[in-house]
Amino acid sequence: MTGPVLQEAAAFAPASVGNLGVGFDILGQAISAVGDTVRIRATDTPQIRIASITGSPTELPTEPERNTATVGLLGMQRELGLPFGMEVSIEKGIPIGAGMGGSAASAVAAVVAANALLDEPLEPARLFAFALAGEAEATGSMHVDNVAPSLYGGIVLSKPSLPSRVTRIPPPAGVSCVVVYPELYIETKNARSVLKDQVPLVTTVEQSYNLAGFIAGCFSGDLDLIRNSLSDVLIEPQRARLIPGFPLVKKAALAGGALGCSISGSGPSVFAWCKKDDVQRVAEDMVAAFAGEDVAARYWISPAAAEGARLVDPS
Amino acid sequence: MTGPVLQEAAAFAPASVGNLGVGFDILGQAISAVGDTVRIRATDTPQIRIASITGSPTELPTEPERNTATVGLLGMQRELGLPFGMEVSIEKGIPIGAGMGGSAASAVAAVVAANALLDEPLEPARLFAFALAGEAEATGSMHVDNVAPSLYGGIVLSKPSLPSRVTRIPPPAGVSCVVVYPELYIETKNARSVLKDQVPLVTTVEQSYNLAGFIAGCFSGDLDLIRNSLSDVLIEPQRARLIPGFPLVKKAALAGGALGCSISGSGPSVFAWCKKDDVQRVAEDMVAAFAGEDVAARYWISPAAAEGARLVDPS
Repeated sequence: MTGPVLQEAAAFAPASVGNLGVGFDILGQAISAVGDTVRIRATDTPQIRIASITGSPTELPTEPERNTATVGLLGMQRELGLPFGMEVSIEKGIPIGAGMGGSAASAVAAVVAANALLDEPLEPARLFAFALAGEAEATGSMHVDNVAPSLYGGIVLSKPSLPSRVTRIPPPAGVSCVVVYPELYIETKNARSVLKDQVPLVTTVEQSYNLAGFIAGCFSGDLDLIRNSLSDVLIEPQRARLIPGFPLVKKAALAGGALGCSISGSGPSVFAWCKKDDVQRVAEDMVAAFAGEDVAARYWISPAAAEGARLVDPS
Repeated sequence: MTGPVLQEAAAFAPASVGNLGVGFDILGQAISAVGDTVRIRATDTPQIRIASITGSPTELPTEPERNTATVGLLGMQRELGLPFGMEVSIEKGIPIGAGMGGSAASAVAAVVAANALLDEPLEPARLFAFALAGEAEATGSMHVDNVAPSLYGGIVLSKPSLPSRVTRIPPPAGVSCVVVYPELYIETKNARSVLKDQVPLVTTVEQSYNLAGFIAGCFSGDLDLIRNSLSDVLIEPQRARLIPGFPLVKKAALAGGALGCSISGSGPSVFAWCKKDDVQRVAEDMVAAFAGEDVAARYWISPAAAEGARLVDPS
C-alpha cells in the first residue's frame, strides 16, 4: 500500500437513538440533525495523534489509545499496514453523556474520514468493524445500536453477539423523530447498573409483541400499528426515575400526538416519533415539560429516513 | 333476527404452529394440510348440542359448555339472540394434545360454520372474538397464537393482552413448513409449568433480535436472514427435555437444510421451516430421527402462505 490519495479528509457522522424503545441493545436510528465531525490530515510520521477536540464542554481523553475516534484508526493502521500517520481534529456536535451515541459517532466519522485517505477504500462492512472495535475498546462496552445507524443511516437492527449482521429496517414515510436533551449527566454505566439481570417472562412477551409490531409497522408503513407498538415496557420503567420529569415529558409528547416516546439509549435524552406535521409542536411541548421541572433542554428533529455518515469538505 | 338462511353448513379450520419459535405467545402460523371440520345443522329447538365427535381416539367433552367448539357458539347465540339451536358434529383431524392448535381449530371451524347460518354474516374480527372467548373458556387458557392463524391463515402476530389487535405477517415466497407429530402426550399445562417466571435479560435481548430478524426476513423475503434468526433461545431450552429425541430431530432438520426448527406450540410436535424443495426430505429425516428414539411420528407439510378457515360442503 502506498501513501494516501488525499492529504486531508473530513467526515460527519450523525447522532443516534439507541434501543429505539422496543429494541434494547439491538435497534438504533440515525439523527441527522446533529453529529460529530472528524478531520484527518495524513502525516509522514507514522503517529496517530489528536490535534484538537472542540465543541464539547466536557473533557475527553486526548491519548489516541483512549479516545473513541482514534482507537478505530489505530486498528485500521495496524491491520492495513498504513504507511502514514494521522493528525486528527474532532468536533463534537453531540453532547457528551446524552445517550445520543456521541462516542459511536466520533468512531464512525473517524474511520469514514480515514477511508478517504486510502488508495483502496474499504467496504462499509469493514469500516463498521473498525469503528465498532474502536468504540468498544475506548468506552469499555459495545454500542452496536449506535455505531450501526451512525454509519448506515436510517433504522438498523443488529445483533450484539454477532455485530456483522446488520439489517436495515425501512423507515416509514412521513415520520420524524425528535430527540430532546435535558442538560443532565447520566453515566451510561450507572444507567446500565440499574437494570435487573432477570426480567419477568410476561413482560418479555409484551415487549416482544411491541418489537414485532414496530418492525411490521415500519415495513408496512402502518403508523397506527407503530403507535400501538412503540412502547418500552421492559427497560424504560427501570430507568425513567433517573430522568427528572420524564413522566411529564412523555405525557406531553403523547398528548401532542406522538406515535411513541421513550428514552434515547441510556438517557437522559428522550425521543419521540411523530407524524411530520406534529413534530415541531411535540418538540416544543417536551422542552416545556422539562422546563416545568426546572431542567433546561434542547432538541433536534430528524426524518426517520436520516442519512448516515458522509464525507464533508475538510477545509 | 330471523331464522337461519341455510339449514346446514360446515367449515374446515387448519391446525397451527403456536409461538413459531421466536414469538412465544404472540406469533402463529396456519398449517393447511390438517385441520378440524365442524358441521352445524340449525334446529327449531334453541339448544346447542354435540351430535358427534369423530376422528379422535382421545375423549373430548360432549357437554356444550365444556367443548371448545360449542362454547363459542353458545356465546354467539347469547350475544346475537339467535332464534335457532344447533346440532354440532365435530371431526377432529388434528391429534389431541399435539401442540398443533386443535382446540383453536375446532373453535374457529364452529364459528365459521355458524356464521354461514346467519342472515347477516359477521365480520372476521367478530368471529375471531367469539372463537377466542370460546377456546379460552373451554381450555382454561387463551391461545391467541393458534386461534388467529387458524381463522386468518398465513402468519399472524397478535397481542395476548389485547387480542383484537391482529397483524398479518407476509409469508416469504418459496417456503414450506413441516410439522412432525411424535405420538406422545404432553399436557399443555405441564409444558407451561416448566417455564421459569423470570428470564435473563441477556437471553431476552438475543431472542428479541431473533424475533425482529425473523419479522424483517418475512417482509423482505430474505431467507438468509430467516435462517439466522429462526432460533428460540428462550422457551425451547426449557421445554426440549419434554420431547424424547428433540435434539436429534432438530439436528436432522438443520442438517437437511431447514431454515429453522423448534417446538410447535407447547409440543410435543416439532416444526421446521424449509425451502420448498427441501421440505419433503427434511420431513422424512425428522421422522427417521424420532424413529431412532423408538418414537412413532407423522408429519404434515404446508406452504408458509397457508389458507385459513373456510366453508366446505356440509354433505
